[in-house]
Amino acid sequence: MNSPEIEHLIHLLSRLPGLGPRSARRAALTLLKKKEALLEPLAKAMSDAAAAIRTCPNCGNLDTQSPCAICTDGRRDAGLMCVVADVADLWALERSGAYRGLYHVLGGTLSALDGIGPDDLNLPGLIERVSNSGVREVILALGATVAGQATAHYLAERLERPDLQISGLAHGVPVGGELDYLDDGTLSAALSARRPV
Amino acid sequence: MNSPEIEHLIHLLSRLPGLGPRSARRAALTLLKKKEALLEPLAKAMSDAAAAIRTCPNCGNLDTQSPCAICTDGRRDAGLMCVVADVADLWALERSGAYRGLYHVLGGTLSALDGIGPDDLNLPGLIERVSNSGVREVILALGATVAGQATAHYLAERLERPDLQISGLAHGVPVGGELDYLDDGTLSAALSARRPV
Repeated sequence: MNSPEIEHLIHLLSRLPGLGPRSARRAALTLLKKKEALLEPLAKAMSDAAAAIRTCPNCGNLDTQSPCAICTDGRRDAGLMCVVADVADLWALERSGAYRGLYHVLGGTLSALDGIGPDDLNLPGLIERVSNSGVREVILALGATVAGQATAHYLAERLERPDLQISGLAHGVPVGGELDYLDDGTLSAALSARRPV
Repeated sequence: MNSPEIEHLIHLLSRLPGLGPRSARRAALTLLKKKEALLEPLAKAMSDAAAAIRTCPNCGNLDTQSPCAICTDGRRDAGLMCVVADVADLWALERSGAYRGLYHVLGGTLSALDGIGPDDLNLPGLIERVSNSGVREVILALGATVAGQATAHYLAERLERPDLQISGLAHGVPVGGELDYLDDGTLSAALSARRPV
């Protein structure tokens, strides 16, 4: 019933994560009603981003410069490399502000169910970077899921070298978390990894 | 931490209804990862829509043609005029497929709390259309809220004319609804408007 332009816009918006067909319709209507304030700036921001953003050939991060700002930042510790599954994880770690080393984005985790094997991930780049540059520690910051942990085990075997430390994120009670609501697995992991106060 | 282009895109996306700062970040990342398949088409769809869409001077609908496709559709019953608060309501009624008359979009409902008075709504257009064209029935399809019902009462008074029928949507049990979950107001409205089966 709507004009093809509107229906096409709704269809594309509904492909964004977090927007279904109904909320895409609502978003499209908001955009059309706020043409000067929102629709036109957003269209411009999208074409600007599409033109400017590239994938860093080193680490797989998304940035306007290539290599990305993290890879070219001399103040970062080039001896630390944090392996993440996705750019979203890299962003999450950067938001925490707790890490000042380099990253490597795998582009996924090993998953036999989804047919994702070692060849589908950015593994050759990781192995080359770890062997050719002065990396002394690889931090496997992969999710505490079956796929994440399988990938971590695989990487730990592939990267094993006497002078290279390989570590993973700690499991335990989330900050602000109540013991009562925690699952048994997290609780026993937190208990076995207990530390002196 | 991200490049200004990405942060600007996230900021604009977070102003869409249904997307908060976190889901806007996720949407932006999906867009950037699917550059050819999603980001570029969406940017183009948005500029196309921004260039093509205009508000119908008759009814207030959004369309690429002006007057809109509904106003210019000769197969529609020009004696029926459905008054809605918003273009979203017009779209919802069109989706139902149950209505084949014309529309009039008020652009909101009267609300003393939000400072929206009769002058802020598209009332002069409605009064002119109702008096100058052969409208025999005005259907006030306004929400069953305090603001919607206050607006309906105000409009019924303003439009009153011996030869004009003014009606409102029926209240009752939603199709597929369980009596058990209905509020008392709806249930008593459905009971008092009961019909022979």
